[in-house]
Order: sequence, then C-alpha cells, then structure tokens
Amino acid sequence: MRALRLPAWKSEPELVEVDEPTPGPGEVVVKIGGAGACHSDLHLMHDFEAGSLPWNPPFTLGHENAGWVHALGAGVTGLEIGQPVAVYGPWGCGACARCRVGAENYCENPAAAPIPGGGGGLGLDGGMAEYELVPDARLVVPLPEGLDPVLAAPLTDAGLTPYHAIRRSWPKLPPGSTAVVIGVGGLGHVGVQILKATTAARIIAVDTRDEALRLAEECGADQTLRSGEGTVEEIRSATGGRGADVVLDFVGADATMKMGAAAARTVGDLTIVGIGGGSLPVSFFSVPYEVSIQTTYWGSRPELIEVLDLGSRGLLAPKTTTFSLDDAMSAYRQMQDGTLEGRAVIVP
Amino acid sequence: MRALRLPAWKSEPELVEVDEPTPGPGEVVVKIGGAGACHSDLHLMHDFEAGSLPWNPPFTLGHENAGWVHALGAGVTGLEIGQPVAVYGPWGCGACARCRVGAENYCENPAAAPIPGGGGGLGLDGGMAEYELVPDARLVVPLPEGLDPVLAAPLTDAGLTPYHAIRRSWPKLPPGSTAVVIGVGGLGHVGVQILKATTAARIIAVDTRDEALRLAEECGADQTLRSGEGTVEEIRSATGGRGADVVLDFVGADATMKMGAAAARTVGDLTIVGIGGGSLPVSFFSVPYEVSIQTTYWGSRPELIEVLDLGSRGLLAPKTTTFSLDDAMSAYRQMQDGTLEGRAVIVP
Amino acid sequence: MRALRLPAWKSEPELVEVDEPTPGPGEVVVKIGGAGACHSDLHLMHDFEAGSLPWNPPFTLGHENAGWVHALGAGVTGLEIGQPVAVYGPWGCGACARCRVGAENYCENPAAAPIPGGGGGLGLDGGMAEYELVPDARLVVPLPEGLDPVLAAPLTDAGLTPYHAIRRSWPKLPPGSTAVVIGVGGLGHVGVQILKATTAARIIAVDTRDEALRLAEECGADQTLRSGEGTVEEIRSATGGRGADVVLDFVGADATMKMGAAAARTVGDLTIVGIGGGSLPVSFFSVPYEVSIQTTYWGSRPELIEVLDLGSRGLLAPKTTTFSLDDAMSAYRQMQDGTLEGRAVIVP
Amino acid sequence: MRALRLPAWKSEPELVEVDEPTPGPGEVVVKIGGAGACHSDLHLMHDFEAGSLPWNPPFTLGHENAGWVHALGAGVTGLEIGQPVAVYGPWGCGACARCRVGAENYCENPAAAPIPGGGGGLGLDGGMAEYELVPDARLVVPLPEGLDPVLAAPLTDAGLTPYHAIRRSWPKLPPGSTAVVIGVGGLGHVGVQILKATTAARIIAVDTRDEALRLAEECGADQTLRSGEGTVEEIRSATGGRGADVVLDFVGADATMKMGAAAARTVGDLTIVGIGGGSLPVSFFSVPYEVSIQTTYWGSRPELIEVLDLGSRGLLAPKTTTFSLDDAMSAYRQMQDGTLEGRAVIVP
Repeated sequence: MRALRLPAWKSEPELVEVDEPTPGPGEVVVKIGGAGACHSDLHLMHDFEAGSLPWNPPFTLGHENAGWVHALGAGVTGLEIGQPVAVYGPWGCGACARCRVGAENYCENPAAAPIPGGGGGLGLDGGMAEYELVPDARLVVPLPEGLDPVLAAPLTDAGLTPYHAIRRSWPKLPPGSTAVVIGVGGLGHVGVQILKATTAARIIAVDTRDEALRLAEECGADQTLRSGEGTVEEIRSATGGRGADVVLDFVGADATMKMGAAAARTVGDLTIVGIGGGSLPVSFFSVPYEVSIQTTYWGSRPELIEVLDLGSRGLLAPKTTTFSLDDAMSAYRQMQDGTLEGRAVIVP
Repeated sequence: MRALRLPAWKSEPELVEVDEPTPGPGEVVVKIGGAGACHSDLHLMHDFEAGSLPWNPPFTLGHENAGWVHALGAGVTGLEIGQPVAVYGPWGCGACARCRVGAENYCENPAAAPIPGGGGGLGLDGGMAEYELVPDARLVVPLPEGLDPVLAAPLTDAGLTPYHAIRRSWPKLPPGSTAVVIGVGGLGHVGVQILKATTAARIIAVDTRDEALRLAEECGADQTLRSGEGTVEEIRSATGGRGADVVLDFVGADATMKMGAAAARTVGDLTIVGIGGGSLPVSFFSVPYEVSIQTTYWGSRPELIEVLDLGSRGLLAPKTTTFSLDDAMSAYRQMQDGTLEGRAVIVP
Repeated sequence: MRALRLPAWKSEPELVEVDEPTPGPGEVVVKIGGAGACHSDLHLMHDFEAGSLPWNPPFTLGHENAGWVHALGAGVTGLEIGQPVAVYGPWGCGACARCRVGAENYCENPAAAPIPGGGGGLGLDGGMAEYELVPDARLVVPLPEGLDPVLAAPLTDAGLTPYHAIRRSWPKLPPGSTAVVIGVGGLGHVGVQILKATTAARIIAVDTRDEALRLAEECGADQTLRSGEGTVEEIRSATGGRGADVVLDFVGADATMKMGAAAARTVGDLTIVGIGGGSLPVSFFSVPYEVSIQTTYWGSRPELIEVLDLGSRGLLAPKTTTFSLDDAMSAYRQMQDGTLEGRAVIVP
Repeated sequence: MRALRLPAWKSEPELVEVDEPTPGPGEVVVKIGGAGACHSDLHLMHDFEAGSLPWNPPFTLGHENAGWVHALGAGVTGLEIGQPVAVYGPWGCGACARCRVGAENYCENPAAAPIPGGGGGLGLDGGMAEYELVPDARLVVPLPEGLDPVLAAPLTDAGLTPYHAIRRSWPKLPPGSTAVVIGVGGLGHVGVQILKATTAARIIAVDTRDEALRLAEECGADQTLRSGEGTVEEIRSATGGRGADVVLDFVGADATMKMGAAAARTVGDLTIVGIGGGSLPVSFFSVPYEVSIQTTYWGSRPELIEVLDLGSRGLLAPKTTTFSLDDAMSAYRQMQDGTLEGRAVIVP
C-alpha cells in the first residue's frame, strides 16, 4: 500500500510503497477514510532533531484518523469488519491512574505505552496510508450513526483538543458568564462551536484577521474583536468591568497570554491551548486573584466519544478541505502559506 | 390602588381598592409591570383551610413579579427609582446556611423570614396590584438590558423552577446523554428551552397531548413521545437500551413517577418538579442502581439572575398571554379549563 | 487443589478437589491469601433458584479476594509473579461507558462480560480455593506496600461498597455537616472509619445493639444512638434542627429507610446500601425538599485503589476473624447465628 | 477606650485614647476578646505610602478579630448582646455576584464596600482596641459552642486563608494523593492541620528550618523535607515519580514557586498563598501539563463558619501567644525578629 512517510528529521515526507499491516493479538487494522493534516506535522518536518523527542523517523504521518475496521487480531471482541471508527490519538500504557479512566493524553507510564509520548503518526505509523495498525482495540472508537469518517478524522484532534480545554471549564460558564476565544484558526473556530453547543455563555472571539472574525461569527460568536491595543479594555467593557470568566488562548504567544491574563475575571480560567512558544510571568500582581492558569494537551477517550456525538448531530462541523494522498504535500504547503481553508483531510 | 386579593380560604379573589404601600427602612416598593398567574394560585383558592399552611388570607395574589423600582426605604443603596427589576419570590430569613448563599427557597429558619415558608402573593401581599412592597432590597434583582418586565415576571417562577431542577443535573448531561421531560405544560416547555440553551443533551419530550408535543418541538425537543404503554420501551430504545440520564417529571403523578423510574439510566437523576400528588415506592428492585430521586422546589437568587440573562438573550421565552387586572379572573378560569395558551401575565 | 464450591441452589457448599486453573491469553491466576465471607453468600446458599439470577451453580464461592500473582497468561504485562494483589470483584464488559472509567459495577453490556452481572464467586469460580482464575489482567490490582492480603481481601467489598457510597457524598460533608450511619455491622463500621478518615463531618451512628454502638465509637463516631422511637428527634436535636446532611442506611429495611428520610436535611443525601428488602414511598410530602435518595452497589476500580491506600496506612481496618478452608463453613454458621466477630476471612 | 492606631504610612503604631464606637442602623459593636497580629501589619507599618492602596492612615490595626456582641444598631436581628462572635474580615459591597454567595474577599464592586478593598484594621478601625465597629451585621459570625474568642481570632485569617486554598483543591485530594506544604509558618502549620482534618491525602511539609518541620509533624505531616537542591527529586520519589497532586506555597518566592511547579503532578494544583514577591514564568515547557496555577486571597463567609467548626472541635488549633494591648508592639517586634512562637493574639 502507499504511505506518506517522514524519512528523517528535517526532511520532506515521501509517498512510498510499504507492506500492508496485519494485526497481532489484540490489535486492529483500520482502513483509512480520512487522515487530518495538522500544524504539528510541519514541526515534525522542520523543527526537531535526534534527541528532541523520545522517538525518531521513519514513520508514516497522520495522527487524526478515521475509517472502517479492516482486520481484527486474535481476541478482539466488540468490533466488526467494516464498522466505521475513529482512532483515539494519544496512545498510553492503558493501566496507570490516568489511562485507567481514559486520559491517555496524560499517561504516567509512557515507557509501557506502544511508544513513549507518541502514537500513530507520532513515532509510529499513522493514517496517511491506506491502512493503519492500531495496537489495542481500546483505541478504536465506533462512530455514531451518520458521521462520515472524513468529518470524523479532524474531530479526533482539532475537535478533541478544544473540547477538553472547554469541558473542564464548564462549571465557570453558566448563563451570564463570558468566554473569550483568542485565535480563530483550525482549533479556535471549533472551540467557538463547542462553546455554542454546550453552554449558554457569551462568546467573544479575538483575532488579528477579519476573515477569522467572520468565521467566528458563523460559528456562533456573540461578539468579535480585532486584536489590538484596546482589546483588554473592550473585553472588560463588554463584561461590565468584571472580565472574562474563561479565556482560551489558541495562540499561546507572549502577547496573547498577557492579554488573556489581563482580560480574565477573578476566579476565572486562563487556558493555554496553542503552543506558540510564549510564557507568562505569574505573580500576585500580574494576574487577577485566583485566576487558574494552565496548559492543556489533547483530550481523553470518553471526551472523544462526546465529541463524535456532537459531530454526528451537526453541532460540531470543522471546516475541511479534502486532498488525495498524492496531493497531501500541497495541503501542507497551503497550510504553511496560510492559504488553506479550514482543516486539510487526506482521503487515501 | 387596586389589588386582586384572596379574602379567605375556599373563596374567589376580589379586585378591591387598598392603600399604596410605603417602604420602611431597607424595603423597596416595586411598580408592577407584570405578575404571572400560577397553577398554585388555584390551589390557594380551592384546596386549603385554616391550619393547612403557616399563614392565612387575606392577601394580594401574585408571586411571579417584575416591574420598576418605585420607592426606596431608608438605607437602601444600589437601586435607582425607575430601574427595571424582578422580585425574587421565596422570601427567607436571609441569614441561615441556605439563605447565606441565596437559596432562600430552602431557608432553614422560616420563623425569622418575613412570613414562614411564603412571600409576596403567598401569605403577604403580592404583585397582582399596581405596587408591591418588598421587605428587603436583596430580594429585588435588576433586569438585564432589553428584558421587558412582562416577560421577566413568569421567569421568576415558571423559569426559575425548571432551571434549578435542570442546573443541578448538568454534570450528568454531557454530549451523548439524554434528558426526558415528562409533561410539556407551563413549566415543562420552559424546561425544554433551558435544556436546549445550556446543554447538548438529546431531549425527549413526553406528553399525552399532541399540541404539547408540538410545543416541545418548537422549543427544541429532539424527539417527542405520546405517553402510553410503550413509552418506557421507546425511551430505552432511543438510548441504546441504557435509559435516560436525567428524567424531569413536571407532572408528579403516580404514573409519571413510575414511568420516570423505569426509563432512567443507572446513576441517573429522576427529579420530581410537578406537585401532582404522586408517590413512588423506592427500593433496590424498583429503580435502577444509583438513580437519584428527589423533589425540587423553586430556585436560588443567583440562579434567578442566570435565568434573567437567558431571557434577555432570547434563549428562554415562555409562551405568555397578557391580561389586565380587570380580566385576571378570566386568566384563572382559562387555566382551570385548560384553554389558556402559555403562561398568563397580569399587567396592571 | 481444594475449593469450597456451591454445588446447586438451596444446598450447602462442599469442600472438593478441583483442577488448578491455568491462565489463557490476557488472564491471570492469583494464589489466594485471603477470601472474605460475605452475607450475600448466605443468600446464594438459601434464597435463589434456577432463573433468579443470570447464572447457576456449580461454582467456587468467594468474591472478596486477595493474594499473589501465581501465573500470567500470554500478553499480560505490568504484573510480576509473586506480586501481592487484590481482585476487583465486579467483572464487566470492560468497554461500555461505565467500564471505560472503571465502574464495572454498573456495566451496561453485561452480555459481553465474563458472566452477566457476576464475577468470581458469583457464577464463576471465586477465591475460596488455593487459586483463582481472573479473566483479565485489568481486574487485578497491585497492593500498596505493607498491606497484607488477609486484610486486603475484605476491603474489596466490605471496604469498597461503603467507600463508594460515601465518596459520592463528599461535597455534602464539609466541616459543620453531619453524617448518620444506620446499622453498624460488617459494612457500617467500615463506613464510620471511612467518614472519619476522609471528612471532618460529625458522625452519628445508630444501631439497636449496644456492642455495635461501642464498635462505632472505637471506629470514630462522635455520637451513638440506640435506635428507637425518638431517634429522628435526637438526630434533629443534635443538628440544630436541620437534620443530617447525609444518611447512609446499611440495613435497608422499611423502618430504617423511613427513619433516614425523616432525619435528612433538605438537599441532603439518603443512600441505601443494605439490601434489607425495604421500600420507601417517595413524594413531595414524605421526604424533605431535594433530599436525593438512591441505592448504591459495590464500587469502581479507581475507588478500590483508593480503599487499598487507606488500608495500607491503617486508616481503614475492618475487624476480621480468620478461618482455614476446612473451617469455612463454621464461619458461615457463626455469621448466620450472629456470633461472628467482624468479617470472616478464609485463608487457604 | 484605648486603641493601637497606625498614625501615618512608614510610622510605628501608637496606643492612644479614642471614643468608643456606637452602632448606627444595621451596625454592630463587638467587644474584642482577641485580635490577631499578622505579618501584613508589618507591611502596613513599613512598605506603603500614599497612593499604594485605596486608603490611608490613621486607623486602628487588627483584622483578625473575635469577641462578644456589645451593642446592636437599629434593625439588627438574630444577634444577642453578650453572644460570642468572630468578625469576617474582608468587607465587600454585599451585593455583587461574589458577595451574594459570601465571597466578599473577591468583591467586584469595591466602590460600594465600607472601604474599597479593605475592612477593619485595613483602612477602617480594626480590633486592636476594646471595641470594634462592624458596619453590617452579616459580617458578624456567631461562634460555635466552646470556642474561645482568643482562639477564634486568628482563625478568621490565619485559619481561613489556608482553608480556602485547600478546600478548592479537595477534588484533587482523594486517598492515594499527595499534598505538599511549602513553608510551615503561621499559615502553613494551620494548612497541615486542615489537610489532616479534611482529607486522607499524604502530607509532605517542606521548610528550611528544623523547628518548622517539627511543628509540621506535630500538626500531622506524614513526611517532612528540609528544603534544598534535592527537594523536587525527593517529592517525585515519595510519589512514585508522579509528583504532588496539590502544592500549597505559603512562601511565594521565586524559588518556592519554581520548586512547586517542578514537583507538581500533571493536572495538579499549584496554589500561591504567600505574598513573597515571587514570580513564575508559565509556559508549555516550564510546568507539567494542565497543572493549574493560581494565587488565592483570604476566604468566604461560609468557609469561615466551617473553619470555626473545625476550631470548636479541636481539629484546628493554631499555636498562639497572647499579649496585652500594652505589649502589642513587642508582639510585632518578635514577629520581625523571627522569635515569635505561633500567632500573636492581642487581648485588650
């Protein structure tokens, strides 16, 4: 079968012929219906070297995958050949305190995972191929009725990541509260949809680009703000001076984190989702009292199931553009140029 | 001024002339913009006698009230003459563990309240008059921008009661869950709106009347079921056999409570809001494991503020029919005949 | 090896010779260090018949088990021969929404479990033998340092069941609150220990027997009440008239459930743990407002790990009497006669 | 009466004669039984100048106060002359979203408070005098039976502040978890007591001073660590490599915040209570995933009631040394020299 593989650090992926995988005991082979292309793939191509991460190329790219069960290893029950499924992306040890409740994104025993701190498309072969080998049936999640694998694929990361970041803040988002979304890109616009579907909070979207703000409005934002000098003041003014109960920073740069801290309400949440390389000095005097500041990373398996439910009911619908495996590299090029509309999904 | 007063138990209310109230220290007089007529008023007219309740007639009816600040007693700050406000209905002692956090509906020291277990329209003079005297400024809640007192009035009870019942169950209502609303009347149809606005749960509405099911659909129900022999089976089937995560019984009869218990999912909630005189025998064998069963009564002051926010944004819009004070009795007659459309609001 | 087996419904268990189990792929054989004898075993011997339960004898008794890993099936990782372990008792499908987070006690797909609604000692061979076959490594939980399998065995049920019932009520048990434990027997006295170790609530223990009340005091009860006509009044009086925030009924008879409902505080919890055959009619007028009433059954796997931690630190120490396999039947006889002190643990 | 007043910024307090206060409508005069001396009083004497804070001297010091009701203003109900009471310290507007549920420490409308961002002893006259005027009866909290005002006084701040910081983290502190207390001084040693009384978490105390570690052990710490180069490693090693579920930094210096971040477990809490002038750069790479970092300030009124309950039952017992009003300045001198044992309480 054909697969888009990263041959080495600091190199371009190559479309090559590889053997079709066969499942060992407990394993599942998924026929890929869609594999999302992610910004972090660009980092894999350009920014790492031997020793940066616990694993190295070569491996097949693609960590946002959905399709149909193709083959089942010995002992696998509860799945049927042909059944549409998504692949849960963060592959943990399956047994530690975090994995035990499905939060494999925070596995505490990565040495016992299929690969430490990675998964398919991240150190092991991923979904930019005709088939993907998934090392344990628990990582394969049946799709709810009516959800196309092409739509499901980006939900496993671009849906799950903002969902986890928002779900943890639900108790701070009752009617009358305000959520601010900074950065309305691939994850941020999905964040607006999730806030709209699951809370009655007022949603303020902030971005530097007009088209991003238009997208935020389409997704359900109540107010949009062109990012600038006065943004913090505008947020304070829109909230009766109190500030935002929850700020979700999908950029993660110095400037956005600082803006988020200044715009947050006491006892609010400032959650950093975007890995923009920024840092925020936290002290008694730099952030309002008891604002909780945290990064989040991906999400849990039970949360993925909830995300897929939202997707199947049309409450969550990331913008996507589809590409064939042959055109996968042009998806990455558009992503890099900033000309890509929505999330790219490779359809083998 | 004119006021609709209940002169005695087991009697008809009378429209009579009474003195305008003047506020003592800490008190507020509200000029009534709307006063909701409630089913429980019919109980007051017909079903009680001396000794049934901790208080007796005569008093002015109307416990769902909104309007404008008319006069402020000595020492009241934070309110301005003419400001649109709602009146929080359950008047507690203001100091016990429940009142301290605004849950005056569950006041634990009723002997120290303005009237034990009552309030304006419930033992003390209510809002079916040109003015209402509110005994403490804390019970007066400013309306958010753009919310008409006529719409706000029914929110203080017909909005707040289902809101409290639903809000406590939010943690059991993530995407993928199911909420069942039994009885789509004055409170039930608002319950459907609240579920729609504040959760992404699937909503199943159950009623015996086709027009009620149509109303449920308009309010956002995903599925409607004509109540009958097979209803429990239909709910189980619609939930993959698991049952409903949350059942809200707005009827409260033997049959609906039994249906709710049978349709609930293990570890779910069965909440009885309607005071239909029913009873449910609870045992290890009559209800699925760890289904929590409880009645709820009205709601808290912070919750009322959240309800008003939903109302001001159009996310909560009870059906209403307005009546003048002169026509108030025809509102109650239509209510009794079952010909009233939506909630009746008396506009003095 | 020798095993205490129930040969048929309505019969006495027999100590017989059976083959030692060998583990298939993914399975584990545990050398038994202790197997708790439970009241429900008496029900198995006396009260059921074909069709009562989804499974039938013969099988080896014992559903409270701990010991050491004896043999590992193919593919099992993370466990070592000789390692001390407890066996998590409720064996579910491992894949449904409940099992996914370790709550196999509420498995929603029992048809896919090793046996529907049962486990080792409950339809399948249990721990009253030299070895027990556990059908999946996830059901085997390593013991924390210093915890003897003889002490660990009863924690898997007599510890886990009250722990789950109490843990769910923690948010209602801050300082200043009151917990009432009705019935200070095998589970109830452990319940008092758990409340003491994990909350600062005042603990009131209620029983009909003086020695039970003495045991409650030893376990940490702040107050003990001989059950009788005035008990509800005494609880109300001890709580400033408010009632108990949480009532745990370890008896589950009509009378105790009624007492619990009458003694509960508005918005409290009344949790029925004991399967005493009782029933409580729940209505707007029989129970204080918003008291949640529910049964609970056993507990989850993550909760068992927490229970074992309490045990290893001496914060949880059920009274036990040990018996050899040969004497197992005298343990049951003492249990039936009411002369057994603490929990019986069979040590093969 | 005599009062210890701060006459101006950057000056020593003076013991002077002032008029006894008389209560206006809604106000209460408390006869002081004990007034705690706090480190922040030293800041008031030495570190501020006109413009630093929203208010200025002169005022009577003492913001940790308890005693007996001495006189009631018009309209005050529910309190009796001679009744022992504590004074809730942070005086808010009483009406905003935070004050409405008793969290006046985070009042959102300080302009409407008795003094913006202050209270008795903080801009207004405090408790280092024979009597204190409290501007609203809601700020006066009855003492539970058996709690001496001398013991109650420090609980209102040195008890309430760590209590609030810990209570918010209870869900992260089940059995098996670990809490780290950095800095076992006036607040830290009370923090250890609170953790012990209200959770079953393992408690690790960290300090640079041997006597502080001895105090931590007396208060219930399971393990004590002399702060140094290897502390983070020791904490990781004591927690099986996972890190601490909750870190409470009662120092708040650069070094302690950095240590706390490095010692925290993913999804844990790092709460900064001590105002040591430190700052922590927070980024994706400086703190484990989803560790929540926040400052906290004082606590809420319902929390104070819970703290007083712990105090009355002996579960919370700050070390105290009492001083007369005449000796108050020697208390501050000992505090500054580091020779003070426990919390100083001034008994007029």
